[in-house]
Amino acid sequence: MISGEIKTRIRYSETDQMGYVYHGNYAQFYEIARTELIRRLGFPYKVMEKQGFFMPVLELHSRFIKPAHYDELITIKTTVREMPTVRMTFNYNLFNETGELINQGHATLVFLDGKTNRPCRPPAALVEAMKPYFS
Amino acid sequence: MISGEIKTRIRYSETDQMGYVYHGNYAQFYEIARTELIRRLGFPYKVMEKQGFFMPVLELHSRFIKPAHYDELITIKTTVREMPTVRMTFNYNLFNETGELINQGHATLVFLDGKTNRPCRPPAALVEAMKPYFS
Amino acid sequence: MISGEIKTRIRYSETDQMGYVYHGNYAQFYEIARTELIRRLGFPYKVMEKQGFFMPVLELHSRFIKPAHYDELITIKTTVREMPTVRMTFNYNLFNETGELINQGHATLVFLDGKTNRPCRPPAALVEAMKPYFS
Amino acid sequence: MISGEIKTRIRYSETDQMGYVYHGNYAQFYEIARTELIRRLGFPYKVMEKQGFFMPVLELHSRFIKPAHYDELITIKTTVREMPTVRMTFNYNLFNETGELINQGHATLVFLDGKTNRPCRPPAALVEAMKPYFS
Repeated sequence: MISGEIKTRIRYSETDQMGYVYHGNYAQFYEIARTELIRRLGFPYKVMEKQGFFMPVLELHSRFIKPAHYDELITIKTTVREMPTVRMTFNYNLFNETGELINQGHATLVFLDGKTNRPCRPPAALVEAMKPYFS
Repeated sequence: MISGEIKTRIRYSETDQMGYVYHGNYAQFYEIARTELIRRLGFPYKVMEKQGFFMPVLELHSRFIKPAHYDELITIKTTVREMPTVRMTFNYNLFNETGELINQGHATLVFLDGKTNRPCRPPAALVEAMKPYFS
Repeated sequence: MISGEIKTRIRYSETDQMGYVYHGNYAQFYEIARTELIRRLGFPYKVMEKQGFFMPVLELHSRFIKPAHYDELITIKTTVREMPTVRMTFNYNLFNETGELINQGHATLVFLDGKTNRPCRPPAALVEAMKPYFS
Repeated sequence: MISGEIKTRIRYSETDQMGYVYHGNYAQFYEIARTELIRRLGFPYKVMEKQGFFMPVLELHSRFIKPAHYDELITIKTTVREMPTVRMTFNYNLFNETGELINQGHATLVFLDGKTNRPCRPPAALVEAMKPYFS
């Protein structure tokens, strides 16, 4: 298992007229959280794209438990529970400043070979970097 | 069962550097689709909010089957399969210009009483308008 | 002079907690308006990109006169006052459903040659299509 | 004069298919930069809204000098050159990781009294906090 957390402060632009964060914006929070998790493994996603790999999202699921508000500093905890195959699943738990769970979700991404545009195995270096967490 | 469809043209702002629509933007497509479905029932969501009802999203699920591209005219087909209780679920199928299914999803919303901020029954007039479709 | 207008309905996602459209979203309204203006000239911007031209924005200016609200059907009137050189400027006037001017702005874009990534003359066919409006 | 700077990392969602940040997203960068500047003066904008003041944007201007890319850590330098009256203007200079100026802009906001929805003087406490910087 691999876990990590980051914080993000809610922007005014991320709210809607209901007075809290528009539900569609959580996909962005998930995205920045997995970007940081992968960076800490030593393979910034940016580098992966330069090496010809892409990771589009196949599936996305969110449960909205409590609202998030403008200017709150939200904690996003990301967990990867299994070694990636052609796919990789990230699980998310979001907490507000008082530690309450406000959102849960997961996103499943697929590794794509940029040349063939077809699913492929993850980069060998990523697999190596992840192995210690799953042994 | 209630069904309806609308079309939306993909904006440049909705793409990302992978060259197609950012996955987080489908939540907006679902939103505009259910807005139109409810409008056709005779109860614009705007009116519902003025009467003190709010409908935050409780759960959101998406499967991304094929990419959508800039300037494509996407068809969003929305279906409500059950009479709403405290919750209401919208099912979505999105098609590209050649008729291919590109995305499937659903969103479950809850009716909230704006005064108490607690879940409530849907507006009576909405229930009446929906009944003929479920008898 | 070339003019055209389109309408766009305000999405819930486009509002913020002040209860009206987030100011940053007007750039998208300008974008969809110029996309349609160029399409009507016979050169969808999508085709231009396929031919190797890109049009990044160099300058953007907006004056926010009155707020726009959720579900309003906004009219965007776009005007091009001069034949494009290396640059092309679009002027915008936005009106709400009662015909009030709510926003004014302009965007200046540059033609880029996708191979050299340097400014270039506009596509000859675009220049030809525009000439009748400026003679 | 009051100055401050913050950094923001470019999200994948903020890019478009041209391969760099969509121009409409700079308004959000300006927003988070002025939010932090005001916070450091001791008056989080959130508190201002709770006290009944709102600050909608009246005017926005941007010059796009160089593109910003996914995952870059952008520095936003914000400067307020004059004591606010009914209006307050924020000036922005954005720099990429190698220190190049990539974007310049300004935003003028108006103080609104939430009860009357009319322009008003800025909160007295904000004026007091700013005075030392302009004497």
